[in-house]
Amino acid sequence: RIDSARLWDSLMEMAQIGPGIAGGNNRQTLTDADSEGRHLFRRWCEAAGMSMGVDTMGNMFATRAGQDPDALPVYMGSHLDTQPTGGKYDGVLGVLGALEVVRTMNDMGVRTRHPIVVTNWTNEEGTRFAPAMLASGVFAGMHTQDFAYDRRDAEGKRFGDELARIGWVGDEPVGARRMHAMLELHIEQGPILEAEGREIGVVTHGQGLWWLQITLTGKDAHTGSTPMHMRVNAGLGMARITERVHQIAMSHQPNAVGAVGQCNVYPNSRNVIPGKVVFTVDIRSPEQGKLDAMRAEVERAAHAVARELGLGCEIEPVGHFDPVTFDPGLVKVVRGAAERLGYSHMDIVSGAGHDACWINRVAPTVMIMCPCVDGLSHNEAEEISPEWAAAGTDVLLHACLEVAEV
Amino acid sequence: RIDSARLWDSLMEMAQIGPGIAGGNNRQTLTDADSEGRHLFRRWCEAAGMSMGVDTMGNMFATRAGQDPDALPVYMGSHLDTQPTGGKYDGVLGVLGALEVVRTMNDMGVRTRHPIVVTNWTNEEGTRFAPAMLASGVFAGMHTQDFAYDRRDAEGKRFGDELARIGWVGDEPVGARRMHAMLELHIEQGPILEAEGREIGVVTHGQGLWWLQITLTGKDAHTGSTPMHMRVNAGLGMARITERVHQIAMSHQPNAVGAVGQCNVYPNSRNVIPGKVVFTVDIRSPEQGKLDAMRAEVERAAHAVARELGLGCEIEPVGHFDPVTFDPGLVKVVRGAAERLGYSHMDIVSGAGHDACWINRVAPTVMIMCPCVDGLSHNEAEEISPEWAAAGTDVLLHACLEVAEV
Ligand SMILES: NC(=O)NCCC(=O)O
Ligand SMILES: NC(=O)NCCC(=O)O
Repeated sequence: RIDSARLWDSLMEMAQIGPGIAGGNNRQTLTDADSEGRHLFRRWCEAAGMSMGVDTMGNMFATRAGQDPDALPVYMGSHLDTQPTGGKYDGVLGVLGALEVVRTMNDMGVRTRHPIVVTNWTNEEGTRFAPAMLASGVFAGMHTQDFAYDRRDAEGKRFGDELARIGWVGDEPVGARRMHAMLELHIEQGPILEAEGREIGVVTHGQGLWWLQITLTGKDAHTGSTPMHMRVNAGLGMARITERVHQIAMSHQPNAVGAVGQCNVYPNSRNVIPGKVVFTVDIRSPEQGKLDAMRAEVERAAHAVARELGLGCEIEPVGHFDPVTFDPGLVKVVRGAAERLGYSHMDIVSGAGHDACWINRVAPTVMIMCPCVDGLSHNEAEEISPEWAAAGTDVLLHACLEVAEV
Repeated sequence: RIDSARLWDSLMEMAQIGPGIAGGNNRQTLTDADSEGRHLFRRWCEAAGMSMGVDTMGNMFATRAGQDPDALPVYMGSHLDTQPTGGKYDGVLGVLGALEVVRTMNDMGVRTRHPIVVTNWTNEEGTRFAPAMLASGVFAGMHTQDFAYDRRDAEGKRFGDELARIGWVGDEPVGARRMHAMLELHIEQGPILEAEGREIGVVTHGQGLWWLQITLTGKDAHTGSTPMHMRVNAGLGMARITERVHQIAMSHQPNAVGAVGQCNVYPNSRNVIPGKVVFTVDIRSPEQGKLDAMRAEVERAAHAVARELGLGCEIEPVGHFDPVTFDPGLVKVVRGAAERLGYSHMDIVSGAGHDACWINRVAPTVMIMCPCVDGLSHNEAEEISPEWAAAGTDVLLHACLEVAEV
């Protein structure tokens, strides 16, 4: 079993970096705080006897040597970046849990045939630079590095420039590594495990997603002196489409969700009818058919609302992944580990996207989930218990020992 | 008649300061650009032989002496601050038109019994610091100066601190001046005069307004892994209330308008269900009964939507004025001046709030309007013709000559 107190101490120490305003974290990707978190992680890895490699996307790979020089490494990890008002565990548990697995192996003097690599993927969250899981996506060949470098944040700063600015452009070509397997431990970010009273989620599938960025163009005009029939109100268009996204998701229950998370209104003045809005629709389903249907319905609804109100309407997909089926062999390994360790478990579908969803395309991949309080995530109040963290990390340890071959 | 070319040149020179991004202006109140505009205006006033006074709200008063030491001055003016994406004429025409009236009187060697004061009121627009018409409101005793000084912009900066920073806290106590009359020339900011083919609007009334700032509180949560029935989506609440505001305004046609101009979503991340929104409803009517009814309906609708979605809901009025009836005697003077000058004219209700609406409470006040292209204002593309500007300023000149007694 892993050292639960040591794991928890590391989680709490990492949470000191990029503190939020309400007990959580704001350690967004490619900020100074992100860099500081990376330095701490590197120091810990080196102290655990691992050697650090960094690729040109800033992905970090800490290697514990294996016994067989020809065996491909087993990867474990997740991400250290957070939402602007994020929690202390989303992503971080997967990275520091993997580190704790190596520390435990060191304590026990365990050697494995396959090398083990603990990974921190750059820009998983996608808030500052869309899309999410950007660097694991480049690693898996889903995006080019040029595409990634050209992503811009809300202030117009380029991903590539910001990565250089914080000093984490590595020398390794991205995607060059081959993997024996990849294991990602993550908090559920939803309410199911807690509600069902299970300590472990064996993640069999991940739901697919579309992010549709919608730009509506109307006409800035005075809110007082412009008669109602002369208005071309982009804000009203956004309101109507937001309601339609909700209705569309509700009409596809169960196994469908939809919401608008990001809204920018221009010029955003109390007495100006919005002449432009830019907002992002997030729709998801584990069923490919539903996901495709919802996308078509949202696009139709957006164009219909725009016609109704005389607005210009552009729809740009800024994030996407298809529903994922994780490696059945590895799923069995995780289920068996939970079983042997005596942890209550259930099969589960990931509601969120994860780096594992991309890596699954280039290597056998699986995820392990642990519960979080009230299913709350992407919220500074995100909480887990030390016992849940330990159970998930124990399962990660045992799955890793099996896959890496003791 | 006034010198149309000189007036136009001054308008264009002022428009150089705080340029926008699309041909208009961003010279928001208490910015460096605002200060620069004030310096230019002061230089012009001094060159026209006037002496400048500034009060503790930064209101500027340039005096042309009268012949009767006991006669109260006639005030003319408007504001030099603009919207973030504003036009070149909104407010500016009223200030520089008044200056042109004095320049014309100087050219003609005209003396008046009453002194004449050309005024620039601070923070008319209300975008950076709500409410609008803030400094004329303090002048008229509608707000205390402490209230005004404590207004904060979106970055949390205080009005009082910013006024001091740009160096325009005057030494005159605000509201100490007594006025014989106040005349404000302004562009219509609506489509009526152009549609009716009239050069002059004789403003008999102004519509009343409420700005209601609504804060909805839900729960930040993951857009992917939070089931639909567990969401407490503040963004959806904002969308529903925005639609209801539109419906309420439509149900009170004619003589009613309503819209949401400013929306702020937190944390504004693509994959976070908004846990908080703050947005402002702008509702107006020239009829007190309608205005009151709309306010009650908007508040009821907001609370109902909040209950529906399980959101917290707080409503704070951040701007208000009752419908205004301008001074009937001065209205006759303006109508007579337009008539004598041979300009086509009509009576009109102001759709926007103006400094004249507050000053009307402490002195006989009237407004003169000229058309603007397509009724467009609070838009960088706001446009007027030199002929329209000249016609309005001619009427201002003749009304002023009559009221100030040549
Ligand atoms: N795990 C997680 O929150 N990832 C971000 C991508 C997504 O929105 O699902
Ligand atoms: N004239 C003008 O746009 N004033 C700002 C106050 C308002 O919104 O009516």
